[in-house]
Amino acid sequence: MINYDHFFSTAALKSRGSAIRKMGVMAVRVPDMISFAPGYPDPAVYAWEEFRDIASQLLTSRESSVLQYGPTRGYRPLVEACVEILAGRGITAGADQVMISTGSQQGIDLVGRTLLDPGDVVLVELPAYTGAISAWRNAGASLVGVRQQADGIDLEDLDRVVTRERAAGRSVRFLYVVPNFQNPTGLLLSLDKRKALLEWAARVDLLIVEDDPYGALYFDDTATAADTRPIKADDDEGRVIYLSSFSKTLAPGFRVAWIAAPEPVIEKLDSFKQTQDLMTPALDQHVIYEAHRRGVLEGRLPALRTFYQDKRTVMQTELRAQLGDLVSWPEPKGGFFLWVTLPAQLGGEEMLPRAIEQKVIYVAGSAFFVDGSGDNTIRLSFSLPSPARIAEGVSRLAKVVHEELARQKAPTAG
Amino acid sequence: MINYDHFFSTAALKSRGSAIRKMGVMAVRVPDMISFAPGYPDPAVYAWEEFRDIASQLLTSRESSVLQYGPTRGYRPLVEACVEILAGRGITAGADQVMISTGSQQGIDLVGRTLLDPGDVVLVELPAYTGAISAWRNAGASLVGVRQQADGIDLEDLDRVVTRERAAGRSVRFLYVVPNFQNPTGLLLSLDKRKALLEWAARVDLLIVEDDPYGALYFDDTATAADTRPIKADDDEGRVIYLSSFSKTLAPGFRVAWIAAPEPVIEKLDSFKQTQDLMTPALDQHVIYEAHRRGVLEGRLPALRTFYQDKRTVMQTELRAQLGDLVSWPEPKGGFFLWVTLPAQLGGEEMLPRAIEQKVIYVAGSAFFVDGSGDNTIRLSFSLPSPARIAEGVSRLAKVVHEELARQKAPTAG
Repeated sequence: MINYDHFFSTAALKSRGSAIRKMGVMAVRVPDMISFAPGYPDPAVYAWEEFRDIASQLLTSRESSVLQYGPTRGYRPLVEACVEILAGRGITAGADQVMISTGSQQGIDLVGRTLLDPGDVVLVELPAYTGAISAWRNAGASLVGVRQQADGIDLEDLDRVVTRERAAGRSVRFLYVVPNFQNPTGLLLSLDKRKALLEWAARVDLLIVEDDPYGALYFDDTATAADTRPIKADDDEGRVIYLSSFSKTLAPGFRVAWIAAPEPVIEKLDSFKQTQDLMTPALDQHVIYEAHRRGVLEGRLPALRTFYQDKRTVMQTELRAQLGDLVSWPEPKGGFFLWVTLPAQLGGEEMLPRAIEQKVIYVAGSAFFVDGSGDNTIRLSFSLPSPARIAEGVSRLAKVVHEELARQKAPTAG
Repeated sequence: MINYDHFFSTAALKSRGSAIRKMGVMAVRVPDMISFAPGYPDPAVYAWEEFRDIASQLLTSRESSVLQYGPTRGYRPLVEACVEILAGRGITAGADQVMISTGSQQGIDLVGRTLLDPGDVVLVELPAYTGAISAWRNAGASLVGVRQQADGIDLEDLDRVVTRERAAGRSVRFLYVVPNFQNPTGLLLSLDKRKALLEWAARVDLLIVEDDPYGALYFDDTATAADTRPIKADDDEGRVIYLSSFSKTLAPGFRVAWIAAPEPVIEKLDSFKQTQDLMTPALDQHVIYEAHRRGVLEGRLPALRTFYQDKRTVMQTELRAQLGDLVSWPEPKGGFFLWVTLPAQLGGEEMLPRAIEQKVIYVAGSAFFVDGSGDNTIRLSFSLPSPARIAEGVSRLAKVVHEELARQKAPTAG
């Protein structure tokens, strides 16, 4: 076979797959594996029956737009549904400021192509969502980390980093934040800091990319809808590109998400989406629109919140009981993730082979750090396994941690 | 509002929307417009009932993979179905050499990101599919045209162009061809030339990107399956990246297509797809797989061929009757397109406003030429309108051409 290296683009030669995706594939293959790795929603709470009825009716209708090519920006009624949903979150955006994307991952990729030249700097939280990191690395960008505190991004560090990067002659393009139940830490950005970020963006003349897949899934025992108010809601100047999705609330298999941004930005995103996939699949958009129109989404949200909150509670209770003296984590007030700091002498990546032996899997925290740190952290997703499996998985994890500590204390052979 | 220009990437500042997409949007808005513009399949021949039954069963099953995140390369049974379909076309490819894409447009885009650095040269036919042109321009490539003859690409011109571009110090990356019923010309590349292209690729050490959305839709009155044998079928060396799709045979709204390529290339395409949309929507992949498994696709192909052949015949007959002495075209032996050369003094783009007045629309041929030529050509799609509408549309077009000629002969005022 011929050697392909001289055919590949610079970006292709550098490209790497996602650690989380690989983990997901691995976990599926081992019988009885308990996976805390990928942030999958639980199919037990998908609206299967409603989707079936909707799909049946759509396909019975023979309405051509259900299966035909359609506008790149999205099926118009769905775009308008997103305008309504945005309004419910305090965001005023017209239909011309909204575009449907094939999952938020596409939104992230399109943002990269629209805003990034090779060598440009993107500011991300330490740690940050790997899908965004990989997408913008694939666009040739340099990812620079900003520290987080218990209430979200560290504003002083943010200022320091911008000053430092600019002094070094680099072009900083935007800040990426996941304010609601961040992936991977589960952190909730405080309302004060949200306002402060808008002032910061105006002061340093940068854009903010706000990714909000989990906002609707706040946990009533520790948070309210008001706590999740998007940064975009107070964005009078047009500095925020807002991404949200139906993947965590309806189902990820549809790959239907949306972007709200100033019109000039939407126009550019549109022209890249045209050449990227022409349009988000039509049947999926129609199903999601109908689920919205019939109140399936809104009606189910309270139950979804309780459902995932209960899983979070089981995971926390078990962790406290079995590892409470050894590990720590910020309490997740919503979303899918619990972020564990291990004892200092343990490494998440190093421990992984032994975890797999015990049939429990997680994502090593270092995958989320663009600065190479985070060695003794791991991300646990509580969204997919049942409460019983969560409890069992934490027991397995506790066994791994205890063994690992014992192993390290024992005198090394040789 | 703030000015966004200083936030945009070099590619975004250069990006342009697709002429065809705009035309499609325009045509939809005018009542009684007859559109020969976009290459849409006809929803009258979609397998609506089968799709409804399949979707119902899939959603009744509650099988999580129907709505869950899944592997980036595609739903495994569908990947294996593509392996079978490829075998039927003479192509030997294992499952590791196949990837599902979100429409062939995504395949085209991924190929660009995998193989192209800004400034690289892509060779395309004169004329060529605009979606490919735009995608690779968005990747920063320079598109260079190669002439076509009645039996497809001009091999002598191809050699000349490669020599010229290389002498000028430019890096030529690959040749893009649509051998079966090319978009926009409808031309069928001869079997001899297919073999010659493989020899050429080896000789000049380049890759070939073979795009084959229409191959299954050959017209029995003028072509056979053997005439459509893909270049990839004889690609012993691994020089061909082959794209095909279910959009023209099942329905475009699913956005399900596939790529067959050497494994090292698939690996790179995969890593860009991961950051682009994670996966092609799951329900769509499952529906397409089931349609294949149940023989819906294979079973319908003969009827589809006849259906589109009949439309082609109506268009040809009407053109011959009404414009036979003024325009010429190569007979389409398959696919969706008929490529008209107008009288030399007429311009496709110039004539368009008057065509719209007469409520008939087409794509001006110049949109498909990367060298700025093709002024007196137009692309007519016969796939979507009914035979009666095709006849009426050609009458309108004939009126426009006759008026335009009369107008040009008349002494200009002022």
